Amino acid sequence: MQTLVELIAKKRDGGRLSDEDIQRVIGALEAGELADYQMSALLMAIFFRGMDDAETVALTKAMLHSGDVLDLSAVLGVKVDKHSTGGVGDKVSICLAPLVAACGVPVPMVSGRGLGHTGGTLDKLEAIPGFSVHLDTEAFQRIVADVGTCMIGQTSRIAPADKRIYALRDVTATVESIPLIVASILSKKLAEGIDALVLDVKVGRGAFMKTEADARTLAEALVRVGTAAGKQVTALLTDMSAPLGRTVGNALETREAIEVLHGRGPADLIECTLALGAEMLRLGRVSTTDADARAMLQQTIESGKAARTMERMIEAQGGDPRVVTDLDLLPSAPVKVAVLAAHGGFITGIDPLEIGLSAVAMGAGRTRADQEVDPVVGIELEVTRGDAIEAGAPLAYLHVRHARDAEAVLARVRDAFQIGAEAAPIPALVLARIGA
Amino acid sequence: MQTLVELIAKKRDGGRLSDEDIQRVIGALEAGELADYQMSALLMAIFFRGMDDAETVALTKAMLHSGDVLDLSAVLGVKVDKHSTGGVGDKVSICLAPLVAACGVPVPMVSGRGLGHTGGTLDKLEAIPGFSVHLDTEAFQRIVADVGTCMIGQTSRIAPADKRIYALRDVTATVESIPLIVASILSKKLAEGIDALVLDVKVGRGAFMKTEADARTLAEALVRVGTAAGKQVTALLTDMSAPLGRTVGNALETREAIEVLHGRGPADLIECTLALGAEMLRLGRVSTTDADARAMLQQTIESGKAARTMERMIEAQGGDPRVVTDLDLLPSAPVKVAVLAAHGGFITGIDPLEIGLSAVAMGAGRTRADQEVDPVVGIELEVTRGDAIEAGAPLAYLHVRHARDAEAVLARVRDAFQIGAEAAPIPALVLARIGA
Repeated sequence: MQTLVELIAKKRDGGRLSDEDIQRVIGALEAGELADYQMSALLMAIFFRGMDDAETVALTKAMLHSGDVLDLSAVLGVKVDKHSTGGVGDKVSICLAPLVAACGVPVPMVSGRGLGHTGGTLDKLEAIPGFSVHLDTEAFQRIVADVGTCMIGQTSRIAPADKRIYALRDVTATVESIPLIVASILSKKLAEGIDALVLDVKVGRGAFMKTEADARTLAEALVRVGTAAGKQVTALLTDMSAPLGRTVGNALETREAIEVLHGRGPADLIECTLALGAEMLRLGRVSTTDADARAMLQQTIESGKAARTMERMIEAQGGDPRVVTDLDLLPSAPVKVAVLAAHGGFITGIDPLEIGLSAVAMGAGRTRADQEVDPVVGIELEVTRGDAIEAGAPLAYLHVRHARDAEAVLARVRDAFQIGAEAAPIPALVLARIGA
Repeated sequence: MQTLVELIAKKRDGGRLSDEDIQRVIGALEAGELADYQMSALLMAIFFRGMDDAETVALTKAMLHSGDVLDLSAVLGVKVDKHSTGGVGDKVSICLAPLVAACGVPVPMVSGRGLGHTGGTLDKLEAIPGFSVHLDTEAFQRIVADVGTCMIGQTSRIAPADKRIYALRDVTATVESIPLIVASILSKKLAEGIDALVLDVKVGRGAFMKTEADARTLAEALVRVGTAAGKQVTALLTDMSAPLGRTVGNALETREAIEVLHGRGPADLIECTLALGAEMLRLGRVSTTDADARAMLQQTIESGKAARTMERMIEAQGGDPRVVTDLDLLPSAPVKVAVLAAHGGFITGIDPLEIGLSAVAMGAGRTRADQEVDPVVGIELEVTRGDAIEAGAPLAYLHVRHARDAEAVLARVRDAFQIGAEAAPIPALVLARIGA
């Protein structure tokens, strides 16, 4: 049998790791026989040499089985989840999960927190008074069965090997590796006990993948590996060249997501929700075509069923369900500071990275995993691409605790808006669909 | 200023690390700000991306200055050392250092221990009763000044960053990287306070570099980087397609090296000693041509001056100097077991790797750094390449504590000898010379 060092050398030299090799590596990492400094050398070798789909499936499964795999067999129906690779203003999960659940497709969802310029679903949900994302797996299973959806954070029992490896990658410059990204995403999602998964792979300056080609490579790998691991998987490439919706910041985004459940809200956010929802209904076998699925989603919003499912989920997770009908029960900032246009014209672009980083600087996000976020602060966009603006008119409002808190980011937010003499074309929200 | 993770990413993406970057990395490693798992990821990135000469010089100097640099300015003359990349039966240092010192060139030598199939000078010297390789730097400096040479082990104060990085490389499959090898060798050697260095880069199955092309690449890098670091450096590529000399094992090799100081010993060992010695005399400015240098070396052996310098060095390091004239004072094994030829013919090859590994298995070497070695065990070759042999005649003698100890390696040693119907050509010992 090869030593663990020989397995590192095998990958370093371009060799293929067998299923058994990969199980040994993950087992040895858990048992303390493979040190972190050996794992990080292997991760860097994988960064350079890559892994084929079979290796990526083996790594996904080894990380998945390092912890508990939830058993949702007691829940009827095809269980479907959605995962986004992360963007600015992406609050889709919060309206999508109850909407799809209200259509009869169970949605067990384990989400993450914000890090860097992108926000996280857990931080947004926690803006709801009383809402808890720290439920044990038994409560999670029960709420999915009763309500149709439940949204929690990754527990220490879900894919602990992924948690450890992700922490290493973050500090060893080995994050940007397609097979490692794929295995990390899928190991966590497969641990939820799902049957199918829809991926929202964001493309553009506010996303992890800056070009459509890179995003497509990642989406295709996710779909291939997820399918090889025995799940139904499809992916949409969606635009992240500007923030999604009109709000960035935790309570602001939760409010906007709830608006969608009432049939209101910005067009891009509605389109993103409906496009991903239609994929989930098709995978969940309650619709056969995109048109049927969209009609069902619209009807479920109009009938109030989606909003009622949101109320039931919030109540089951300890939150105040009245926020769904009375949005003012959500916490809000005491001060709004206007960001004014320096000159007039048409909005031709809104830099999502600058908006995201500005929100982090205001306290809405974090640069280190152990930082607290302030739920009420954030940025409300008054205009969107294509709008005409006059000099001195508001581009955005900064929601802050004190007016002085706005000073540090005011120019940065203003400069994130590009204003041209003519309106520029706006990219389609859904750029491509990958999968069967 | 870039973060340490950004420096790892810079090398990962093929960038050049500045002198300041490299000083920061080594400083942070020493200070505990760069974790081992980050260093090993960087080492793997260097394995893939390499380092140019300026980066390698900077790494060498950063590792060198992580510890003490000996001050030999009180010793007159050009101080010259020799370093071998390691082979089987390579006992050259033991006769070379006193021989060159006896010619008037001071030789301060910090050596290593055996690991894997190659032996180490320290283990061989310790076969001399009473001899100590653990001297402090003050004693080392004094003995070099008084005797002309002193041979000790790497102390914790010599290039500690190299020690730490070497230990990491060994367990993370990042040993085989030319810039890392070069920086490791040179940082230790430059810490000795030398002015010049001759490198013996071994080529062949018993060496680290298996092909002449690989050995030449390493030798050229060592000469370029050593020169750029301000030292005079030359290298010889020497043959390691068979064991050097007729003995493998610590006391056996020390005995054979002393034979050379008396003008006896096997031709290949004498040639290796003279070729490297001539380089050292030229660098040490006591000879101008190879022919003059060889004549001086021969005369120094014949006059008994070389043997007397060996006696003085042994005495200064606490050993029994009488071993030089009475070789039987060296420890020896009580039992010699013959390895017999299965059939007759000509010796066409002796596999140095198999001989080296057999000696390790007998207890002459170690597979882990913390193992003890037995000074008396080893293998004495009765024939060399080109010799005729009859079926049933001895190929070698295994020197063991008990006859039963020979059983496990007997067939392996026998099979290391290739016997053909005709004599095969024997490669030259010195394959090439690199340097000004």
